[in-house]
Amino acid sequence: MSTFETITQFSRMLNNLDEWLQKGAAYGQSKNFEPDVLGQARLAPDQYPLVQQVQSACDAAKYAAAYLSGQKAPSHPDTEKTLSDLRARIRTCIDYLGTFKAADFAGAEERRVAPPWMQGSSVRGDQYLTRIGVPNFYFHVTTAYAILRHNGVDLGKRDFIGVRNWADFAES
Amino acid sequence: MSTFETITQFSRMLNNLDEWLQKGAAYGQSKNFEPDVLGQARLAPDQYPLVQQVQSACDAAKYAAAYLSGQKAPSHPDTEKTLSDLRARIRTCIDYLGTFKAADFAGAEERRVAPPWMQGSSVRGDQYLTRIGVPNFYFHVTTAYAILRHNGVDLGKRDFIGVRNWADFAES
Repeated sequence: MSTFETITQFSRMLNNLDEWLQKGAAYGQSKNFEPDVLGQARLAPDQYPLVQQVQSACDAAKYAAAYLSGQKAPSHPDTEKTLSDLRARIRTCIDYLGTFKAADFAGAEERRVAPPWMQGSSVRGDQYLTRIGVPNFYFHVTTAYAILRHNGVDLGKRDFIGVRNWADFAES
Repeated sequence: MSTFETITQFSRMLNNLDEWLQKGAAYGQSKNFEPDVLGQARLAPDQYPLVQQVQSACDAAKYAAAYLSGQKAPSHPDTEKTLSDLRARIRTCIDYLGTFKAADFAGAEERRVAPPWMQGSSVRGDQYLTRIGVPNFYFHVTTAYAILRHNGVDLGKRDFIGVRNWADFAES
């Protein structure tokens, strides 16, 4: 599981997240409620609502790609309010991830990674990705999924994994 | 991020999950409700309750380790009812994961993996781990966390990530 393959998987999951939001929008229309209220839905009063779960998922993926390649991450301000805004944010993140090639992550596992919140300390790239980047990314996409599911959106495990056709996948 | 490192990370996360269950038990006692009712809590009527989320997280980790090493997975029957049972199941899974050494996963990325549900088809080991094993594992641990959080258990992101002391982590 190379760093590049992990970043590619983040893009796949963000595409899945985009589909869940589309299902959320369709659900709102079918039930005659304003779909954008889902953006403020949350599972606990002291946990982020859907809007921030999506923003955080995007940031987890963006920073992992930037840190592991030694690049400076672009700024993506947290200004989204609607499901449509969130879908655009996801698209911006996927487009950014799509600028990377496997060679950009040469030596990534040994690279020292020093996020600002570590206040001057650093960790090896592989430790960052395995213990921070990947869990954090999946935390936010799964919580976004759970918020939608909890609110009645018709989602299942295949929507989460995003593999529609096992036969195609099996060729890989 | 080697296969062995990913399996090691699964063990870390299962240890974290064990701590969340302990917090859930303590919460029940502090609020004078039977803590084991949390085992049947769920976020949506057609989604697994906590018991099955924990069982599924354990199985995702167990099967990833078995498939990627070419071993037959041991049987861990889904008989758990209480939080204490679930903690024992987690311990059984962590003990199993602890039997593996890095060398057991030599060639794991190219190994063909053929889970029964693929009905005779197979995928490369690295594809299985990146696209099925890791997302599935994090799906179930995050949903278990979300169920507890939704029911009022005092958990935060640091409990999820499980890194208590950034300074220690930074040496890695």
